[in-house]
Amino acid sequence: MNDSRIQRKGREGRVIGIDAGGTRTRARLADAATGRTLGEGTGGPGNALSVPPDTLARHLAEALRGAVRSGGGGAEAVAVVAGFAGGGPGGGRDRALAALGAALVEIGASPERIEVHGDADVAFAAGPGTPADGLVLIAGTGAAGARVAGRRAVRAVDGDGWLLGDAGSGFWLGREALRAVLRALDGRGPATALAVPVEALCGGLTREHVVRYAYAGHPVRLAELSPLVVEAAAGGDAPAAALLDRAGDELAATVRALNPIPGEPLVVTGGLLAPGGPLLDRLVARVAPLGLEPAAVPDGLSGAVSLARLLL
Amino acid sequence: MNDSRIQRKGREGRVIGIDAGGTRTRARLADAATGRTLGEGTGGPGNALSVPPDTLARHLAEALRGAVRSGGGGAEAVAVVAGFAGGGPGGGRDRALAALGAALVEIGASPERIEVHGDADVAFAAGPGTPADGLVLIAGTGAAGARVAGRRAVRAVDGDGWLLGDAGSGFWLGREALRAVLRALDGRGPATALAVPVEALCGGLTREHVVRYAYAGHPVRLAELSPLVVEAAAGGDAPAAALLDRAGDELAATVRALNPIPGEPLVVTGGLLAPGGPLLDRLVARVAPLGLEPAAVPDGLSGAVSLARLLL
Repeated sequence: MNDSRIQRKGREGRVIGIDAGGTRTRARLADAATGRTLGEGTGGPGNALSVPPDTLARHLAEALRGAVRSGGGGAEAVAVVAGFAGGGPGGGRDRALAALGAALVEIGASPERIEVHGDADVAFAAGPGTPADGLVLIAGTGAAGARVAGRRAVRAVDGDGWLLGDAGSGFWLGREALRAVLRALDGRGPATALAVPVEALCGGLTREHVVRYAYAGHPVRLAELSPLVVEAAAGGDAPAAALLDRAGDELAATVRALNPIPGEPLVVTGGLLAPGGPLLDRLVARVAPLGLEPAAVPDGLSGAVSLARLLL
Repeated sequence: MNDSRIQRKGREGRVIGIDAGGTRTRARLADAATGRTLGEGTGGPGNALSVPPDTLARHLAEALRGAVRSGGGGAEAVAVVAGFAGGGPGGGRDRALAALGAALVEIGASPERIEVHGDADVAFAAGPGTPADGLVLIAGTGAAGARVAGRRAVRAVDGDGWLLGDAGSGFWLGREALRAVLRALDGRGPATALAVPVEALCGGLTREHVVRYAYAGHPVRLAELSPLVVEAAAGGDAPAAALLDRAGDELAATVRALNPIPGEPLVVTGGLLAPGGPLLDRLVARVAPLGLEPAAVPDGLSGAVSLARLLL
C-alpha cells in the first residue's frame, strides 16, 4: 500500500464479485485479467427486499472483509458487481445499492465501477462461456426463472415468494412434505416414510404436533424439511418421490412459461439445481423435449466476477 | 330478582348457547323448554388456540352481556354450551374452558352446567332434528370436516390452517386468486377479470404491487378476497369460476375422506356453505353421488343452544 505504482497496478488488476442470496452473502476477490480467485468471504443473508438495510450492509461488509483479507491485500478492487436476491428494478435495487455503498465505505474501498443486479443476472453469467442471452432458473429456498438479454433479466416468472409461489422450491417441498404427512394421518393420502423424520422434528406424530411445529416460526423455515424429502425418496418412499416429481414439473412449467427457444442457454443453480442437486436430473429430463440442456452452476458468484471483469 | 321463587323459575327456564368462531363470538339466551330466543350478543374473535386468553375471555363476556341484556334480565342461565374454533380436545379445550369460566364470573353468572366443545360439535347439532351422529363440514375463513358420534366430533379431516391446509376455504380462494393474477401477469396462466379488483386492492397491477400486498400483513387476511372470486365468477370469468370449482372439489374430498355412509346427515356451514353460500351448490352436486344431501345452517349458534337444552 506504500508504493503508489504498485498500488495502481494492483488496483487495475482486481475485481470483486458478490452473490447475495437468501441464505448467505458471498464475495470473491479476483484477478481482472485472468479471473483467478484471490480471496473469498461469507456473510449473513443478503436478500435486498427482506433483510433490513443496516443488517444488509453489515452482511456485505462481512463478506467483503473476508474476500479482501484472504486476498492478502487492501480493498483495491477497481470494479464490483453484486447480485442480490430481491435485487431487481424498483425498491430492491435501490436498497441493494445503498447497502453496498455503505459496506464499501466501511471496508475502505472506492472502486471505479459498481453495478448492482438481481440474482438472476449473476447466476446466468456464471454459465459456460459467460452467455449474454438465454434463460436462468434458480431453485433453492425459493424458485424463480428469468429470460436474460444483454446480461440483464428482462422477464421473470415466479419468484413470488413462499405464500404465493416459489413452485418447486425447497420451501414448497418442505410444506408439501408436512401436508403429505397430515393427509396420511387423516386418510386423505397414502402412508409415507416421511412420517419418521417429521415425527422426530415435531416431537410427535399427531396432527397437533405437526401443526404446532408448522406455525411455530417463520413459514419459510419449512425449507429445512426438503432434504428429508430427498432422503425418503432415495430410500424408496413413493409419496416422497412423487413430491420430487411434482417439484420437477413445477420448475419445468416455470421454464416453459419463459417461451424457450430450442438450443438457447439454460443456466440453473440454487440448492436444488446446483451440480449434483436433487432436482437436476428430473429437470433435465423434463426440458429436453423443449430443446434445452441445463448447465448447472454452484451459484452466481463466478458470474458476478465475470460481469465485474466485463466492466473493465 | 327479589322474589326467590320467581328467580328460581327464571333460572330453570333459560340456557345460553355460544358459537365462538374465527371471525366473531356469538351468544344466545334461550328458553330451555321451547328453545325460543330471548336475547343475542356478539363479541370479537373466539378461536381458542389463536386468541390470547384474556382477550378470549373479554370477547366471550361481550357476547354474553349482549345476550343477557337484550334478554331483559340477569344472567340466570342454568346451562351453557359453547363451541369454539380450535376448541377440540387438548390445549384448545382447556383454554376455552378457562376463558369461558372467567367470562361467566365477569358477568355474574353461575350456571349449573357448563360444557365446552369444538366448533364442529355445535355446528352439527344445528342440523335439522338435532342429529347425534353424522358428518359436518365448515368452510369459512378456514375449512374442516368431522365425523360426529354421540354429539361429539370423533374424527377430523383438514382444519390444518392456512399454511398447510384449509383446502377450499375463504383463505384458499383468496390466495389462489392472487396466484391466478400473478400467473396471468407472467404468462403461466390465462387472463382473468380478477385483475380488476386485485389491482384496486393492491394499488396497482404489477407483480411488485401484488406481492407487496400479499406479504403486508397476516396471511389469513387474504380470505378477504374470496368474495371477489365469487363476483368475478358470477360475471362470467372462467378462471374465477374454475377456482370455485376447485374449491368445491377440495371440500368434497374432505367429505370423502370421512368415509361417508350413504343417507347419513351431512351438516354444512361457514361463510361459504351457509344457506345461499357461494359454494353450496357445487358441494351438493359433488356429494350427491356419495348418497349425501347437505343440510346448510347459518352457524353453530342454534346447535349450541340445542346442546345446552339437552343438558337439562
